[in-house]
Amino acid sequence: MRCIERDELEPLATGAWILGAGGGGNPYLAYLNLRTLYEAGTQVSLLDPMALADDDRVAIVASVGAPLVGRERLSDPRFAAKPLLAMQAWFKCEFRAVMSVEIGGTNGLQPLMVAAVTGLPVVDADAMGRAFPEGQMTSFAVADLPMLPLVMSDIRDNEVIIPRAASPKWMERIARKALTEMGSVAATCKAPRSGREIKAHGVLYSTTKAIRIGRTVHEARRRHEDPVAALVEAEAGALLFKGKIQDISRRATEGFLRGRARIAGLDGDRGAVLELEFQNEFAAAWRDGEVIVTTPDIICVMDSISGEAIGTEMIRYGQRVSVIVLPTPDIFLTPKGLEATGPRAFGYDFDYKTVLASPVSVRHHV
Amino acid sequence: MRCIERDELEPLATGAWILGAGGGGNPYLAYLNLRTLYEAGTQVSLLDPMALADDDRVAIVASVGAPLVGRERLSDPRFAAKPLLAMQAWFKCEFRAVMSVEIGGTNGLQPLMVAAVTGLPVVDADAMGRAFPEGQMTSFAVADLPMLPLVMSDIRDNEVIIPRAASPKWMERIARKALTEMGSVAATCKAPRSGREIKAHGVLYSTTKAIRIGRTVHEARRRHEDPVAALVEAEAGALLFKGKIQDISRRATEGFLRGRARIAGLDGDRGAVLELEFQNEFAAAWRDGEVIVTTPDIICVMDSISGEAIGTEMIRYGQRVSVIVLPTPDIFLTPKGLEATGPRAFGYDFDYKTVLASPVSVRHHV
Repeated sequence: MRCIERDELEPLATGAWILGAGGGGNPYLAYLNLRTLYEAGTQVSLLDPMALADDDRVAIVASVGAPLVGRERLSDPRFAAKPLLAMQAWFKCEFRAVMSVEIGGTNGLQPLMVAAVTGLPVVDADAMGRAFPEGQMTSFAVADLPMLPLVMSDIRDNEVIIPRAASPKWMERIARKALTEMGSVAATCKAPRSGREIKAHGVLYSTTKAIRIGRTVHEARRRHEDPVAALVEAEAGALLFKGKIQDISRRATEGFLRGRARIAGLDGDRGAVLELEFQNEFAAAWRDGEVIVTTPDIICVMDSISGEAIGTEMIRYGQRVSVIVLPTPDIFLTPKGLEATGPRAFGYDFDYKTVLASPVSVRHHV
Repeated sequence: MRCIERDELEPLATGAWILGAGGGGNPYLAYLNLRTLYEAGTQVSLLDPMALADDDRVAIVASVGAPLVGRERLSDPRFAAKPLLAMQAWFKCEFRAVMSVEIGGTNGLQPLMVAAVTGLPVVDADAMGRAFPEGQMTSFAVADLPMLPLVMSDIRDNEVIIPRAASPKWMERIARKALTEMGSVAATCKAPRSGREIKAHGVLYSTTKAIRIGRTVHEARRRHEDPVAALVEAEAGALLFKGKIQDISRRATEGFLRGRARIAGLDGDRGAVLELEFQNEFAAAWRDGEVIVTTPDIICVMDSISGEAIGTEMIRYGQRVSVIVLPTPDIFLTPKGLEATGPRAFGYDFDYKTVLASPVSVRHHV
């Protein structure tokens, strides 16, 4: 266990936003919150997942809802911690630590806010290694671990618990209706996980990875080097395309942000066209009409100069962007993982494609 | 404690339907269910509320949802018991007995079905002494007892718990959304009550009262006497009007059945017109344009010949009906009780009116 230093917060936000694959919401507001907490003396501890005892109980937290509503409501540590405290009170359990369900986007910083309120350490792991649009797209779900109970809290004093559901789909349906009534933003605490489950089925060291990614980008920027090239090099990713946003369509349907971006090539890609489709996160890329990369690979659109990620809700005509691909956690490339997170899980009639050499062999541990 | 006999089930159904004040759903399907259970050897015990120890915990059950959906789904004892079993499992509490939130309508028989599954006795009491459209219209709410947690189960395997809410109104909003997604019918288990709370704030001996009312009607019918007159006489009620349904309008809005019935006078009321408005239950009566009776008095429309209650969803043009008024539990005639259940709580701009001589002094105990 070590302390997360104040100067790691900004790299963590940058890295989590990149791992968001276009979704998960910009972590900037959560970062501002944490900076304020650190200035007031808070310090959050990061716990090596392999240091968990088999029967330690870990609270799995996430904020859920429409990212656009999240942008109008500053993240609030007390609010983030509410469902954990409710789960502790109602189910009379003690938690050893707190962990994010997804490292990508604002949820990469959610457990730090909960940690600041509760004094619990943050486990250096998550269950997605990125952001995904649906609750069942996790390494825990792929491992068939139960997903319930779910506790949701809103910014008032309302709490909803779903202790049983006929299926993950039913859980999602009922939770989404309650979420909508609560104002489309809620803090959640999901099925607690044991130390054994996390060590066997978590995506390990993803907080460290997000900090490392953020550092790579900031470092290159400071040295006036190309942050996109530096990132791709350091993380065994690939530069997919450079170009200019030519067209963007977005529609908020069924609680998701769906849409398509069209990018006209620049530099080496001049004359070519890349099209990206997203369902909160980027799901697939077509080069001149042919699918070349799909989910669960981490597809990320970045500002070509600053190396900052650009969320699917923030893409605008005229932006100069670099589209990169980063490797997804191995678990999602297994047959069961692809069934849960591959293109067919997003409604596409084609199989997983990648441009990465040998994605399954790419492993990152600290 | 005594056994509820098989030949008390039908009078209970008749009496509960009359105490439904037009709402609460016809208990006939629940009665058929219980008859089958009794034929298979089940017997349910009725517990005198005054025999509860102060710290006994009692499960408060009710089915909720749209009565019309309830009519298409035969009541099911296993389904009725699910939320109680869930509350027991999640909150690790043991129940001494089960009790209905409302004696009026199908919920008057709900605890008997739960009792048949769990083996618990039924407390001879409820929290309304009739049926009311909203969850906060109870003697417990008037006494400011907390209304949470609420557990809801549907006919699949979905469960929702609301352990905290910003207000009773918020609880109602969120529960109603979850209920709708579940298919507009759910079994619920509400905040458990202690023996002390029931003895101090319950509507006592209401199961016995419903059986007695049903017996009065059946007995008069058997003797070819006027069941409506017999009932009014026995229960210190009043015959308000006799007539023929001339017009009926109904609309299902915001989860309620709202509407208005117009009755043209017959016999002694010839030439006069009575109009009734309902929000699930009958809320107010106008005679020739002037308000004469309002909620929380129990207004009931009955078939003039059989003495069977007619629900607000079943009123039809041409029916020969007798409109009667029965006294409401005293607690609802206190200032706080009227605030919760009087005409202003239903959106009317007038105060409580009655035709009963001295309603507060009318008390029924066995």
